[in-house]
Amino acid sequence: MDLLDWLAAALGDDAVAAGVLTTDPALLDAVRTDRSGWTAEGRPVALVNATRVEHVQATLRAASEFRVPVVPRGAGTGLAGGANGTDGAIVLSVAGMDRILEISAEDQLAVVEPGVVNSDLNDTLQPYGLFFAPDPASRAISTVGGNIATNAGGLLCAKYGVTREAVLGLDVVLADGRLISTGHRTVKGVTGYDLTALFTGSEGTLGVIVGATVRLLPLPAGEPTTLGAIFPDVRSAAGASARITAAQLRPAVMELMDGPSLTRIADHLGPETIADAFGTTGGGSFLLVQFDGIGSADDAAAAARLIEEAGGSVRVSHDADEGERLLAIRRAFHPALAATGEVLIEDVAVPRSRLPEMFDAIERISERYGIPIPTVAHAGDGNLHPNFVFAGEEAPPIVWEAAGDLFRTAVELGGTLTGEHGVGVLKRRWLADELGPDSYELQVKLKSVFDPLGILNPGKVFGR
Amino acid sequence: MDLLDWLAAALGDDAVAAGVLTTDPALLDAVRTDRSGWTAEGRPVALVNATRVEHVQATLRAASEFRVPVVPRGAGTGLAGGANGTDGAIVLSVAGMDRILEISAEDQLAVVEPGVVNSDLNDTLQPYGLFFAPDPASRAISTVGGNIATNAGGLLCAKYGVTREAVLGLDVVLADGRLISTGHRTVKGVTGYDLTALFTGSEGTLGVIVGATVRLLPLPAGEPTTLGAIFPDVRSAAGASARITAAQLRPAVMELMDGPSLTRIADHLGPETIADAFGTTGGGSFLLVQFDGIGSADDAAAAARLIEEAGGSVRVSHDADEGERLLAIRRAFHPALAATGEVLIEDVAVPRSRLPEMFDAIERISERYGIPIPTVAHAGDGNLHPNFVFAGEEAPPIVWEAAGDLFRTAVELGGTLTGEHGVGVLKRRWLADELGPDSYELQVKLKSVFDPLGILNPGKVFGR
Repeated sequence: MDLLDWLAAALGDDAVAAGVLTTDPALLDAVRTDRSGWTAEGRPVALVNATRVEHVQATLRAASEFRVPVVPRGAGTGLAGGANGTDGAIVLSVAGMDRILEISAEDQLAVVEPGVVNSDLNDTLQPYGLFFAPDPASRAISTVGGNIATNAGGLLCAKYGVTREAVLGLDVVLADGRLISTGHRTVKGVTGYDLTALFTGSEGTLGVIVGATVRLLPLPAGEPTTLGAIFPDVRSAAGASARITAAQLRPAVMELMDGPSLTRIADHLGPETIADAFGTTGGGSFLLVQFDGIGSADDAAAAARLIEEAGGSVRVSHDADEGERLLAIRRAFHPALAATGEVLIEDVAVPRSRLPEMFDAIERISERYGIPIPTVAHAGDGNLHPNFVFAGEEAPPIVWEAAGDLFRTAVELGGTLTGEHGVGVLKRRWLADELGPDSYELQVKLKSVFDPLGILNPGKVFGR
Repeated sequence: MDLLDWLAAALGDDAVAAGVLTTDPALLDAVRTDRSGWTAEGRPVALVNATRVEHVQATLRAASEFRVPVVPRGAGTGLAGGANGTDGAIVLSVAGMDRILEISAEDQLAVVEPGVVNSDLNDTLQPYGLFFAPDPASRAISTVGGNIATNAGGLLCAKYGVTREAVLGLDVVLADGRLISTGHRTVKGVTGYDLTALFTGSEGTLGVIVGATVRLLPLPAGEPTTLGAIFPDVRSAAGASARITAAQLRPAVMELMDGPSLTRIADHLGPETIADAFGTTGGGSFLLVQFDGIGSADDAAAAARLIEEAGGSVRVSHDADEGERLLAIRRAFHPALAATGEVLIEDVAVPRSRLPEMFDAIERISERYGIPIPTVAHAGDGNLHPNFVFAGEEAPPIVWEAAGDLFRTAVELGGTLTGEHGVGVLKRRWLADELGPDSYELQVKLKSVFDPLGILNPGKVFGR
């Protein structure tokens, strides 16, 4: 029996009839890409659209039997090439496992399947007065399982924690098809090694996440207060954000856009949008700060003073509509860039105090390579997204050279080459440089414990 | 050359002259115990009082060379037998590595050696307006390295997170003496597997923690507000605490003591202490709740209403001295028990909604075995510490039978057999029951990646 017959038999007639297994070339081609713009060469042999845990188990048993790679996949919104279907692999999509199985307001947790879309989960939680804190910019289309597989954070991490902190337990199908549960429904629990944290951010290389018990937080009380500020240059804006952190104010959102970003947003939305929001079209940098909770107005007033001391021109908004207009400027960032070409969205992080230096370095690298690098930063947690805009489908070598320079600089400043997007294929060549040879070797050995046959997303994270 | 000569040569003459290496029988006997009351049989061969990373590396190289077990140890305040020096082992104490190497107010982090005592760290941080959130009841004598090695939480976890969330990066000496660094100085960072989380709570079985970069939080603004409440029985008190959580109030501290606890505290402090605090000496349960932050008074008022609805008699204190008197009742718990015999402090956790059921079960188990089990719970996170008081030095078999019943009940309620003390020796026989055979097997294989010779704290966590 060949792989496909074996897999079809393992999935069962009903599943096959329902379209769980497909070899349609158009569908196989569609899963060779993600949102990074990178497309894997060759073509996967099959796509399994799992709707039940048993489908995932059957797929991994088939893959083990035939020594065929499995590429786990959610909504495909990744930015590092981690879920791209490679040549000869089975792509195992869990996007169709999208049920919210339980919400416990008492225990402030939810049990979900991996394909639940972030914003759907938070819409469902809203009447309970609770929320799931991980908040990637792609929340309208990204899935909770994908957040967990990449430990993707988003805008709220400085105040509400990274994704790992929001995951209490996982159901995971191992490489040989066995199903295990990790973690607890409790806040605390220290029996054995923390496999929950180990699977979080493992990018499909240790097992396939088929369920998650996630921690929920109470929605902040009161109205948020939003500040928008224009600065003459990005260094002064970065200085202001560092002062806000050092003053122990805790904004929920603190987003910083540099001059090249602001110019493109103004071009995209029309300069009057910026003028309406700030009373000026000029400016070299934009800082957006939002405080929530009952002290938001006081916190915002204190932040406004710090911003003005740092040379910023600030507008404070207690009004939801006006706050929304300020946020709209931030949200226009990616569409504004995408309108001008293909975009490679990078993702370094540095200690917050080093943000001004990192912005200086980005400016230098931009000049050295003659490439504009509009950058937005989650300034509250030191995570920067420098963006390379280019013509054509794939990023040319010079873009990767500039990106390599960027990664090295971030690591030299005490930071990391990926704050939240993951390593995938696109950053694997720099991984060993950051980890060092001893940690790298340990990680490879760790993988082999979970994946002795090397069938789980091979070529992702590790390799050059 | 024998082990001790080899070790002395590796440590160097200066270290040996300074007392880094000792074989004094009294000192070796002293490290056979921890605060659990359990003492290991036999005697270690040597005690290394490391004051530098190089001492730890030399010790592990010697242990690898001679295939001798190494038992890493901090202040010895553990409660599960995890750091007890076993027969023939080298006990490697890092209590003397107690420097605070860096405090960055800007990046809200500190870099510390493992032997720094919790309360010393927080005393040092106080002028910066920052704190290290892990807050075990033993904070005056326990070390940061020990917190991390056991993922020990304490009183503030529901609001401020477990220890794992407070650790950004670690320096770890591996079994063969190599030094690696994990994690980042950044809030976010997802390069490779999360070794920082894997070492956190690994109880000395994967490597020896010789340094930590820990996340700091801003001290809450404003004055705390403290509530003390007496209830007719523990079930109604547990119900009140569940209501407070469900109402999305977020106390920093929420401690619940049952009737047997309260009786012993009244005996210990004198009944007038309870009467002064509450205007009554009677009562079957005591709930202590403390809110911090600028909304503390409003939160406390809301909690007081819920407590009264649940049948409690409540006193709200905005005054620091009165609050301190209420806290003193909680702090008297362990001394009150210790005054009546030897104490085995247990440590289960259940989902917060199951607290009333767990208290019922404790009452049933207490009756079934004819053993009083005074219990205090961190009610905000569902972590209970049932205490067994007995005569003689070691807990008799019937105490362990009752404890086993307790563990099974906690797991059946969706909980765990250890919320924060760890597995050590005393709970290893129940570990596989909670994890299940597949997870257990994975964990054993994981250990072998880090410790191929089986020299790192063998017999702890795993084994029966």
